[in-house]
Amino acid sequence: MNTYATAVRVGVAGATGYTGVELLRLLARHPAVRVSAAMGAPGAQPRHVPALKRLWDAPVNGLDLDLLADASDAVFLALPDHAAAEVAPPLVARGKRVFDLSGAFRLRDAAQRRRWYPGTPEAAPPVVYGLTERNRDRLPASSLVACAGCYPTAAILALQPLLQARLLDLEGAPIIIDAKSGVSGAGKTPTERTHFSECHGSLSAYGVFDHRHAAEIEQELGAPVTFVPHLLPIDRGILETIYVRLLPGADEAAVGKALHAAYADSPFVRLTGSELPEIKHVAHTNFCDIGWRFHAPTRQLVLISCIDNLVKGAAGQAVQNFNVAFGFDEGLGLQ
Amino acid sequence: MNTYATAVRVGVAGATGYTGVELLRLLARHPAVRVSAAMGAPGAQPRHVPALKRLWDAPVNGLDLDLLADASDAVFLALPDHAAAEVAPPLVARGKRVFDLSGAFRLRDAAQRRRWYPGTPEAAPPVVYGLTERNRDRLPASSLVACAGCYPTAAILALQPLLQARLLDLEGAPIIIDAKSGVSGAGKTPTERTHFSECHGSLSAYGVFDHRHAAEIEQELGAPVTFVPHLLPIDRGILETIYVRLLPGADEAAVGKALHAAYADSPFVRLTGSELPEIKHVAHTNFCDIGWRFHAPTRQLVLISCIDNLVKGAAGQAVQNFNVAFGFDEGLGLQ
Amino acid sequence: MNTYATAVRVGVAGATGYTGVELLRLLARHPAVRVSAAMGAPGAQPRHVPALKRLWDAPVNGLDLDLLADASDAVFLALPDHAAAEVAPPLVARGKRVFDLSGAFRLRDAAQRRRWYPGTPEAAPPVVYGLTERNRDRLPASSLVACAGCYPTAAILALQPLLQARLLDLEGAPIIIDAKSGVSGAGKTPTERTHFSECHGSLSAYGVFDHRHAAEIEQELGAPVTFVPHLLPIDRGILETIYVRLLPGADEAAVGKALHAAYADSPFVRLTGSELPEIKHVAHTNFCDIGWRFHAPTRQLVLISCIDNLVKGAAGQAVQNFNVAFGFDEGLGLQ
Amino acid sequence: MNTYATAVRVGVAGATGYTGVELLRLLARHPAVRVSAAMGAPGAQPRHVPALKRLWDAPVNGLDLDLLADASDAVFLALPDHAAAEVAPPLVARGKRVFDLSGAFRLRDAAQRRRWYPGTPEAAPPVVYGLTERNRDRLPASSLVACAGCYPTAAILALQPLLQARLLDLEGAPIIIDAKSGVSGAGKTPTERTHFSECHGSLSAYGVFDHRHAAEIEQELGAPVTFVPHLLPIDRGILETIYVRLLPGADEAAVGKALHAAYADSPFVRLTGSELPEIKHVAHTNFCDIGWRFHAPTRQLVLISCIDNLVKGAAGQAVQNFNVAFGFDEGLGLQ
Repeated sequence: MNTYATAVRVGVAGATGYTGVELLRLLARHPAVRVSAAMGAPGAQPRHVPALKRLWDAPVNGLDLDLLADASDAVFLALPDHAAAEVAPPLVARGKRVFDLSGAFRLRDAAQRRRWYPGTPEAAPPVVYGLTERNRDRLPASSLVACAGCYPTAAILALQPLLQARLLDLEGAPIIIDAKSGVSGAGKTPTERTHFSECHGSLSAYGVFDHRHAAEIEQELGAPVTFVPHLLPIDRGILETIYVRLLPGADEAAVGKALHAAYADSPFVRLTGSELPEIKHVAHTNFCDIGWRFHAPTRQLVLISCIDNLVKGAAGQAVQNFNVAFGFDEGLGLQ
Repeated sequence: MNTYATAVRVGVAGATGYTGVELLRLLARHPAVRVSAAMGAPGAQPRHVPALKRLWDAPVNGLDLDLLADASDAVFLALPDHAAAEVAPPLVARGKRVFDLSGAFRLRDAAQRRRWYPGTPEAAPPVVYGLTERNRDRLPASSLVACAGCYPTAAILALQPLLQARLLDLEGAPIIIDAKSGVSGAGKTPTERTHFSECHGSLSAYGVFDHRHAAEIEQELGAPVTFVPHLLPIDRGILETIYVRLLPGADEAAVGKALHAAYADSPFVRLTGSELPEIKHVAHTNFCDIGWRFHAPTRQLVLISCIDNLVKGAAGQAVQNFNVAFGFDEGLGLQ
Repeated sequence: MNTYATAVRVGVAGATGYTGVELLRLLARHPAVRVSAAMGAPGAQPRHVPALKRLWDAPVNGLDLDLLADASDAVFLALPDHAAAEVAPPLVARGKRVFDLSGAFRLRDAAQRRRWYPGTPEAAPPVVYGLTERNRDRLPASSLVACAGCYPTAAILALQPLLQARLLDLEGAPIIIDAKSGVSGAGKTPTERTHFSECHGSLSAYGVFDHRHAAEIEQELGAPVTFVPHLLPIDRGILETIYVRLLPGADEAAVGKALHAAYADSPFVRLTGSELPEIKHVAHTNFCDIGWRFHAPTRQLVLISCIDNLVKGAAGQAVQNFNVAFGFDEGLGLQ
Repeated sequence: MNTYATAVRVGVAGATGYTGVELLRLLARHPAVRVSAAMGAPGAQPRHVPALKRLWDAPVNGLDLDLLADASDAVFLALPDHAAAEVAPPLVARGKRVFDLSGAFRLRDAAQRRRWYPGTPEAAPPVVYGLTERNRDRLPASSLVACAGCYPTAAILALQPLLQARLLDLEGAPIIIDAKSGVSGAGKTPTERTHFSECHGSLSAYGVFDHRHAAEIEQELGAPVTFVPHLLPIDRGILETIYVRLLPGADEAAVGKALHAAYADSPFVRLTGSELPEIKHVAHTNFCDIGWRFHAPTRQLVLISCIDNLVKGAAGQAVQNFNVAFGFDEGLGLQ
């Protein structure tokens, strides 16, 4: 299926989790890629992936760093944070280009990293933060890309252009992000929290004032946020309802102008204006849909930002980063 | 099953919608009630309610006002707003005590009522707003009770004690209510919006800056709110995430004190403190669960308030109002 | 709340699983019961049950057999099979009346019991099989009641009267039971199988030709069945679609007659005739709804039988058995 | 995106229903297709399809037969049965190749067609039944393809090879198909039946002994079936549990051999053997997964057959038929 003269040899570590399977699905069909290795976590038992039959029929074995490095030009890590923290530096040292989907390298400040990702190393190799739309220029020269978290992707894409255009009244009212995510965001390991009967027909908030993605959002925005995530009874998808106050003089038109300017050349950001986005329109796609409504008397702006947490929030964005890093069309294999 | 000497003869109008069926289910088992009439909307075809077989086996016929009035001491209206607006005044005039679950009589200001409930009459009989915990003292003398809306019930119960205790910094930050409701809140009439395939696996916001329940909440709180409702892919239940800023000097203890004082004698408000409520714990009950978390550095308070929209948000609350109005134990038939 | 002169002191072991919580919910409101002990599995940590706040506020501690026996006249066991197998005999020996919701004592044949419930003891105390409608007469004298399994309850209630009336052509076609159950039937322990993302939006068959409930159904019916269970993406509820062929001469009227005769005095079996039952009408109730359609040219009869697996399939039926065993009204506390 | 020298100009009628949107999604990315017209039902208002933003941004107008014919070499009809019955013949007469996804032309017998599709014309143009795996040889010369129904696709693919290999004991036991479908199969028009609150948390059977897909299955298999469909609380996907008895002498190996021989060259049939298929593995794909289990003592065979009703059961299969009809690779645009 690969019609490109020189396919990039790509390895995947952590190929049996929800993110890993999605990654394998995308990479197996990517026209400029040859999947040369698909491995599980360190010590994992060999396992088939029934969902990928005919797309990827080989067993997924436990992680073997040497085999992985020998077989690959680029490596995607869909591992737990601590495993990624351990595996990424030696791969980079051997000249591999690494796309890490974990949180291990996202926070630049060492103290923050220690707090939110205990057990990850003090020092980290040079890292590009992998939100494609934000760091498109820095990706080609990257060796290690820390792909953006799912919640931060939706939040930063909606807010960053408004901050840059200085439209927000940060004194008058805090940035509030009321976030809702499907259960696949909690990972594949079964817990009481992810039991079907605990989620079905219900909704709950968690990690209030205490979620590491708040630190990631604040790092990228340079502004404090109140972030409250909720667990939705759906499999995949994130919707964030964001509350900010505009500065006097700013209005709905200015918001539209700033967002349209920021994403004029971004194939995966769709601005829906006053027609508000819904999770079902982004599910199974790499799109981030952003809509908004403004209430002039109170200068209150409500933004709605939606992604599929497994695609634009994880596997799709990693491939998008890979495409830009290797000079391919940004949307290759992601349409 | 009725063990009370003198059962109240109760009529239900609108008995086949989601709220009406829930009402009939509660009233049929209520030990001080005899359901003397169960009718549909005006002009409705006779219909059985399979869900209530053995609880209520009679057919539900179209509305007949004379029959209804003759048969009943008290009447519950689970009708569309305009039908309730038409039917309630003559029933009151005939000396019936009316518990209206529609929105027709909730807004006291005539201009607001015209805006949000067009077609309802200019003048209204004297009304008691039917949020039991708020108007317990006024219910015994009521003739027409406008039972509180579903979203307002959850919002007012969480916020009113804090406003009364003057803990909120209303200048520094607006009251933000991010509300999520199950689909039964949209009523039983099939629409594109309530189609299973439109809701399943999705989430969407609607009515942003334009929902009549915002007017109802503002009327009762006496303070402006930003209210954004969302349609959850569940059948029943509401969770509201409420963002307010405390005044300097106020703290978490003061919040707990105000709430515990307000609800010391309220059997249906459960305060969960920092252990946040979830929809599944209130579904199929008349409870309103309220929890909260405070972030001292920013003085930001997050409240979570949960109800079952068909019970505490509609049928259960109507029965609770009825119990207090007739001098029964507040929880009779609602345990 | 207890208005009965002499409340039965009731203990619950295994009170934190899905069945145990449902049991506690029913018993806490039962007018002839005083819940005198609620314990978890052996060795379980003390735990609150947030769903039962205001109904049951005491912590649920680990199982203590002596405390349990001292405190109780009757004991409900909602424990894993092997724990129930161990705990029931000494309780019976101490004169307690035991209602076991596990499978440990359901199969009378020792070889079958060894095969399907390995680890349970060879010899068992005298047992009454706890399908109320079937053994109403034997319950008053029972000391140990093995409450019927969830799938068997729906299957036996639909089929047994037709077998007894000799309407079924068992030579011409096997009895086929295509069963579908909500996820709570798999218990509360988190597994890959019960992960929300594995079930949501999906359906799967399991245990084909290899499910212990088939043995239980065959024991009670005295006829072989083909039983295929499926895991439905809902929390609670079972629907079984049952395919049998009638003997020549038998017809739809004979089916209706046999079923109506069997359940004339059964408050919890609702016969819906050709209007087929749906899970939503039995959820959160103790009803078993049974409907049927007949195709004369092929003599094929399709029966649909529905229950809530946690109520009529577990906790509700246990209470129903208890009511009959102690001489109370069969529906007490179950309306 | 089209890299083929001579793209086929393709028109779609009925592009806003669930099937139509899926079709447009597939065709817009199909490398050998140029979508030259996308129209709604006759008289439909112009409408955008938010889910397809960036894939298909033009409005979908009401049906204009002349415009459609002029613009297209091939036309896909995702219309109601009666509209398709009216529109297909003139398109064929004008030399267009028509792929009809409705049921209007599936039944060859005029009496059956009248019974199940009243209002469709007595006489029909020559038709190829569009189950690709069955009629691969006849598609290249077709002018009108009646694409197979969703339930029949899953049933026929599982059963036809076993009938052809004469493995089934049709005297001893009827073919029983217990089918379960997601709600999108009921179409986009809102009805009480498709209301979210009616489906969520529930399951129901419908159309017992009275579903037109039974006639379609019987036509293709040449054998009578008992067919009972159920409405699953999921958006998309069908799982059929099929019960048949093997002839003496036939065994599990013979079943596997027949199925593997039949589908050796079929890229979209995946045989899973004793590892049973699940809906989640076929959702959003064009695969039909088939697994089976055999019980030798009773000669009972259980087959499980799964598809996505909107893809292999509708839009995907239509594109697969188109690919074969026009001589493209069968899987083009469907990977």
